Amino acid sequence: MNNILELLKIRPLDENALSELFPQMNVADIAEALDQAEDDMSIAAFRLLDEELAADVFSYISPEKQQMLVEGLNDAEVEGIMSELPIDDMVDFIEDVPEDVGKYVLDQVSSERSTLVDHLLNYPEDSAGSVMTTEVVELSAKMTVKDALQTIRTSGVDKETIYTCYVIDEDRKLIGAVTADTLVRAGLNQPIKDLMDTNVISANATDDQEEMTNQFRKYDLIAMPVVNRGGQLVGIVTVDDILRVIAEETTEDVEKMAGIINLSDEPYMRTGVLRHARNRIAWLLILMLTAAITGAIISTFEDSLAVLPVLVAFIPMLMGAGGNAGAQSTTVVIRGMALGEIVIKDVMRVVWRETRIALVCGVVLGIANYARIWLMHDRNATLALVVSLSLGITLVVAKSIGCTLPILAKKVNIDPATMAAPIITTIVDCTALIVFFSIARIAFNI
Amino acid sequence: MNNILELLKIRPLDENALSELFPQMNVADIAEALDQAEDDMSIAAFRLLDEELAADVFSYISPEKQQMLVEGLNDAEVEGIMSELPIDDMVDFIEDVPEDVGKYVLDQVSSERSTLVDHLLNYPEDSAGSVMTTEVVELSAKMTVKDALQTIRTSGVDKETIYTCYVIDEDRKLIGAVTADTLVRAGLNQPIKDLMDTNVISANATDDQEEMTNQFRKYDLIAMPVVNRGGQLVGIVTVDDILRVIAEETTEDVEKMAGIINLSDEPYMRTGVLRHARNRIAWLLILMLTAAITGAIISTFEDSLAVLPVLVAFIPMLMGAGGNAGAQSTTVVIRGMALGEIVIKDVMRVVWRETRIALVCGVVLGIANYARIWLMHDRNATLALVVSLSLGITLVVAKSIGCTLPILAKKVNIDPATMAAPIITTIVDCTALIVFFSIARIAFNI
Repeated sequence: MNNILELLKIRPLDENALSELFPQMNVADIAEALDQAEDDMSIAAFRLLDEELAADVFSYISPEKQQMLVEGLNDAEVEGIMSELPIDDMVDFIEDVPEDVGKYVLDQVSSERSTLVDHLLNYPEDSAGSVMTTEVVELSAKMTVKDALQTIRTSGVDKETIYTCYVIDEDRKLIGAVTADTLVRAGLNQPIKDLMDTNVISANATDDQEEMTNQFRKYDLIAMPVVNRGGQLVGIVTVDDILRVIAEETTEDVEKMAGIINLSDEPYMRTGVLRHARNRIAWLLILMLTAAITGAIISTFEDSLAVLPVLVAFIPMLMGAGGNAGAQSTTVVIRGMALGEIVIKDVMRVVWRETRIALVCGVVLGIANYARIWLMHDRNATLALVVSLSLGITLVVAKSIGCTLPILAKKVNIDPATMAAPIITTIVDCTALIVFFSIARIAFNI
Repeated sequence: MNNILELLKIRPLDENALSELFPQMNVADIAEALDQAEDDMSIAAFRLLDEELAADVFSYISPEKQQMLVEGLNDAEVEGIMSELPIDDMVDFIEDVPEDVGKYVLDQVSSERSTLVDHLLNYPEDSAGSVMTTEVVELSAKMTVKDALQTIRTSGVDKETIYTCYVIDEDRKLIGAVTADTLVRAGLNQPIKDLMDTNVISANATDDQEEMTNQFRKYDLIAMPVVNRGGQLVGIVTVDDILRVIAEETTEDVEKMAGIINLSDEPYMRTGVLRHARNRIAWLLILMLTAAITGAIISTFEDSLAVLPVLVAFIPMLMGAGGNAGAQSTTVVIRGMALGEIVIKDVMRVVWRETRIALVCGVVLGIANYARIWLMHDRNATLALVVSLSLGITLVVAKSIGCTLPILAKKVNIDPATMAAPIITTIVDCTALIVFFSIARIAFNI
């Protein structure tokens, strides 16, 4: 890696050294190096790759650099790469670049290919159809193993999609699957019909990609066929795509839970400061304005505070504990739903469970808190009791709201992660304050 | 699925119906059904599976149910399953069950197998060695394709590990890899030497599993060979294990960030209330006690509050905004590090980036805040300025601490997620209060 990075810095480009180095390198590493090099150097180096390798490397390069390459290469070169590029990577590319670049690229390839890309672009974002590739080995049940191996040899389909071959009937309906190792182990004259697994786990083209990730994990899949509403095979999703989908979906979830609306899927270092700020300002603003409500609640109780100023000192602790306890519940529930461990109909069981957890936490924290206040505030038992009682109630409220909101959100088809920590913090803050001051007023008669 | 769940409820067990149903079902679905059935019913149903299928189903069953099965079956049955079980699943099982159950199981299998399991159990937790399986097809460079196919046929190695075969030399050193599709496409007499890819991405047995997940994603791998310090092939990690590792690691990260120390890897619904409470209490307690510091700070400024009680109303907003802004930075940095996008040496670049992001957010929020206070608090420009200025400074401090702590943690080998939101909230809370009161004292001369 360091070697190639050095070579890509020396002008003029040492074409011989690079041409010797490339075949020894992994495509992902070549792509990474080209990604980091100056634009003109990466174009020059890219031109040294033969067509098939070039397309392979291209699919690993970042979207911005891909666009730069397409703009820097000539029409024939673009056509060469785009005709060799796996169809799903071509779709990803077109989705990522400005419309005119996409149009230019589609003009370079065969009309058959551009129609196919166009078709794939129509699937909803984040659906199985938008992730799949159409390059799949299709067998018929009537074939023998020998026929099947011949079909694979001549298919020219990429290695990733060959591990499982799918069997279709005359109407292109998916009826079975055969893995490569079954073919290798079987006798050449055995019919596919006898070897195929007819119990195939498949996805519908409109299925959500997150659901698919759970199926891959549950069934240990390496590939999953995608069918249309008529049960006809339309494509295949491979596990390498699933690894990317998982990374994307997790980042999205985690960021949403922290109040970040990520408008681009770019890695951290490649995203500009203004874009980062834009992703984060919306929630910060909303939460700042809702905090005005908390402020207003405190103002209402200003008289109580004037009588007993020591109360103020407990506000941060109560709000903090409530916020943290709520965030814990929200997090486990959102994560459980993402993994398919918790479903909507579990809502009452989850609330009941969280309430009991909150009671246990509330008792332990309440006792610790009572002891601390009693020791540090002149053995003031009433004060200790008021704060501890408020703490316990806050925890129960925080945890039950914290676990309910994400499930309700899912129920009405809002992304649960959007209902996460920040919102719950605001609700819990208000509850904590009202509970605390109400109890204090009664206890101290103010 | 519903069908089998119904069958598993009817006593006595309808063995004929089940025996007919099993072969049509996916192993993962059979396992799920047995997991949900009553213990005696799942034992009876499990006995209907033939040995190979039984071992397959067993590997998909939850640890508790696995233990129940082992305790319910006789010695010969246990031996049968354990001899057929993939070695990595057997290791997982032994790790999960109480010591005496593990010992009993090891006693049932051949001494060769129990030595191997013992050996694998010695790898550090979460290392490549602890996830790998030793069942791998080993080829020699001297073989022809025909020899290689023969080796695969007779190896009896499970399907997952056959997609890539590894080539070793006389010293068992890893020297290359051949994929199943290359073998299928090549002529029978071609030597492996000419077909193998010598640029193999491999892991060391002691490498961390999280690093491995990033390699799988970067290189689109389906399997990765594991070597010892001498470069000798010791095992293979397959992508289905990586999918599980990713799910586990993500859950762990997300939960740590929310202040949950997960002591068991059990799914939410299967974990008891007390265990859940225990996972959460530690951080809640620590944060409650550190909040005492915040309380103490407020007490210090009690005089100022007595003069200007309106200041109290802004405390929740300042602390909330700081906490949220800090959590945003922490989250993106932890996530970036998990994906390998941010490394330790980026620390200064990240801090500089986050500071600028904070300035942008600070200016926007400051202006909005100024306007709100000016309008709602009798056009009190000084008050508006004091709060807005404190807000801006708090945001910058929150974001720069929020992004630095996780990187520093990683530097000293503490899990970055442990340094997450809750801790940062406490630090930021204190800073926000001190900044706010200091500015207020100067501005209002109190």
